[in-house]
Amino acid sequence: MTAPHTIRRPPPAGIATPRLMIPGPCQSRPDVLAAFQRPVTAHYGPSWARTHEEALTLLRQVLGAPWVYLLPGSGSLAIEAAVVNTFRPGQLVVIPRTGYFGRRLIEVARAHGLKVRDLAVEPDRAVDPRHVADLLPGADGVILVHVETSTGIRHPVADIAEVARQAGAAVVVDAVSSIAGEELDVQGWGVDAVAASTQKGLGCPPGLGIVALSEHGHARTLDDHPRPWYLDLTRWDREREESFDWEPHPVTMPTNLVFALIASLSTMVDRGLGEWRQERARVAEHCRERLTERGFTLVGAPADRAALVVVARCGRPADVRLHVLREAGIAIAGGLDPVRDAIRIGLMGQNGTIEMVDECTAALGTNRWPPTEASLL
Amino acid sequence: MTAPHTIRRPPPAGIATPRLMIPGPCQSRPDVLAAFQRPVTAHYGPSWARTHEEALTLLRQVLGAPWVYLLPGSGSLAIEAAVVNTFRPGQLVVIPRTGYFGRRLIEVARAHGLKVRDLAVEPDRAVDPRHVADLLPGADGVILVHVETSTGIRHPVADIAEVARQAGAAVVVDAVSSIAGEELDVQGWGVDAVAASTQKGLGCPPGLGIVALSEHGHARTLDDHPRPWYLDLTRWDREREESFDWEPHPVTMPTNLVFALIASLSTMVDRGLGEWRQERARVAEHCRERLTERGFTLVGAPADRAALVVVARCGRPADVRLHVLREAGIAIAGGLDPVRDAIRIGLMGQNGTIEMVDECTAALGTNRWPPTEASLL
Repeated sequence: MTAPHTIRRPPPAGIATPRLMIPGPCQSRPDVLAAFQRPVTAHYGPSWARTHEEALTLLRQVLGAPWVYLLPGSGSLAIEAAVVNTFRPGQLVVIPRTGYFGRRLIEVARAHGLKVRDLAVEPDRAVDPRHVADLLPGADGVILVHVETSTGIRHPVADIAEVARQAGAAVVVDAVSSIAGEELDVQGWGVDAVAASTQKGLGCPPGLGIVALSEHGHARTLDDHPRPWYLDLTRWDREREESFDWEPHPVTMPTNLVFALIASLSTMVDRGLGEWRQERARVAEHCRERLTERGFTLVGAPADRAALVVVARCGRPADVRLHVLREAGIAIAGGLDPVRDAIRIGLMGQNGTIEMVDECTAALGTNRWPPTEASLL
Repeated sequence: MTAPHTIRRPPPAGIATPRLMIPGPCQSRPDVLAAFQRPVTAHYGPSWARTHEEALTLLRQVLGAPWVYLLPGSGSLAIEAAVVNTFRPGQLVVIPRTGYFGRRLIEVARAHGLKVRDLAVEPDRAVDPRHVADLLPGADGVILVHVETSTGIRHPVADIAEVARQAGAAVVVDAVSSIAGEELDVQGWGVDAVAASTQKGLGCPPGLGIVALSEHGHARTLDDHPRPWYLDLTRWDREREESFDWEPHPVTMPTNLVFALIASLSTMVDRGLGEWRQERARVAEHCRERLTERGFTLVGAPADRAALVVVARCGRPADVRLHVLREAGIAIAGGLDPVRDAIRIGLMGQNGTIEMVDECTAALGTNRWPPTEASLL
């Protein structure tokens, strides 16, 4: 039970860590990291309540959503919250099997007692809204990945929301890998619920799940159906209403992370969200050009490729899952089902720049590929 | 929807923050904070897998538990995980209504479809194991707060586990406010599941829930009953087994917090856990003596008072909930149901020292009490 162990101290702060160009988590910019590193403060009191509200206000702009919640936890927790507040156990949902994270949506839905009609999707293709429409009769909703991290494909949320609305079906979107990198207008597109997290496009450390709802989506949460205590958004509403100026959430909040989130979101809003996203798209396009020059084959059609993650086949199944370009001190990721023979490069946070793309792809070009065991982290 | 807003920058790092002596979160010691502030690393790979395992190994020693899980989220999430993995919907549990957090246990249990027999407990009294025994016939388990933060009372977990074992009932313990401050031997005491978090007795920032199970408690989780995807510990087991040396958990982990946790736990284990706890008890006793000298009335009988939080009545209901001793730059907490007319002092992390107790109680003595609005945070 209390097995003997050797205490292995964590490396001291400041030790050389590979620069992350994996598809999340990312490394934060210095100003975001400075906000993260403040001394811990209380998660209640008037000053804290204003800070929390500021974070929600900024997120509402980024997501085009009137209702936003910060849930301590990971993106998967936020996805589960979006699902369990939108659907009752026993309802039927259509879920496109877009890849590794599409399959996760199916698992989460089934854990909540939903019946699932899953829609097979080829790894190189975006979901066709007509195929969703074909499966919608009799279904209560669609649950969909916006950007599938395993393929780097962006799926057409606006078009799928449109066919769902016509069929009277609710729409829940996993935006963990798209937030702040792709256009996403929760209210305007008629999406009911969106889930995301802090450690990818928002450029912060991991630790907070984000749920955003449209007015229609919020109305669905008010339906009195069973759901876990922690994930019950009616509880989060009630705490916020009763204690808006004091402690507007029912559980302890990672305060440092909320300060970091405000710092990061403020930069995006100051720059203009459209310009921010265009810059992400330009960096991704630059990365794709460099990879193509070096003989990699990009996944998907040009119009469907995501802004924050680039997936390219490297010709044979990668026998390692995390690649470190050791000489360059840069970490990129290997392939994930259903595209195992791939590298995946994340373009988020501190390292999502043209300069880092050049350095990374140059290092790729001078490395034997796939790398040897000796080049592993 | 996208209401206009004024961007309010977070205060820069290093701004004067009151020193926290609230019952969680606490401020971390410099070595713990240094580990927390490392650049973000990937939550997978061989190096990360060793780090994660090191944290679990240390926690096993602190809790006397063979099975430990780190769940991104708050202590309340860990409580819900402990409950939903131990009991099936429809089962009957006894829950002592010990205060604010005892009531939360009742809410969590009901959200999972459990039937609850709640046991009224006076704010100044520890739960009487005989009263629990009286309610056990026909019940499947007991869910219990170890240290109730609203009263500062430690409840007799070992004795209650004993009567539960005799009745064939499972025991789940909320150790959020007791971990590392009170003796707790999950396997030895026959407790099934314990829930805790990082930001109190472990001296780290908030953001991770902790679940610990005995062998018996672990066997209960293997029962095939419905539970949320995120909280299903059989999924966490499966990921750990399948990917022990790579990514031993199903979701993104706040890596910084795990490094901080190792730094903090290492100190406790190095010093010896018994000595560590005795030191906590000495600091708490010192705090109680100082408060008594200043005319405060302590809650509970001496043998039942907790080590990490001191609750004392201040003679009239506090009209504020967070008190800042402004001249001293120290924050303490006000009363919480069922002891509203109280102050609560946390003795955790960086500020859980004799010196800080002296400074804090001296500042209390020179402040008008309750404090004026002007002394609020």
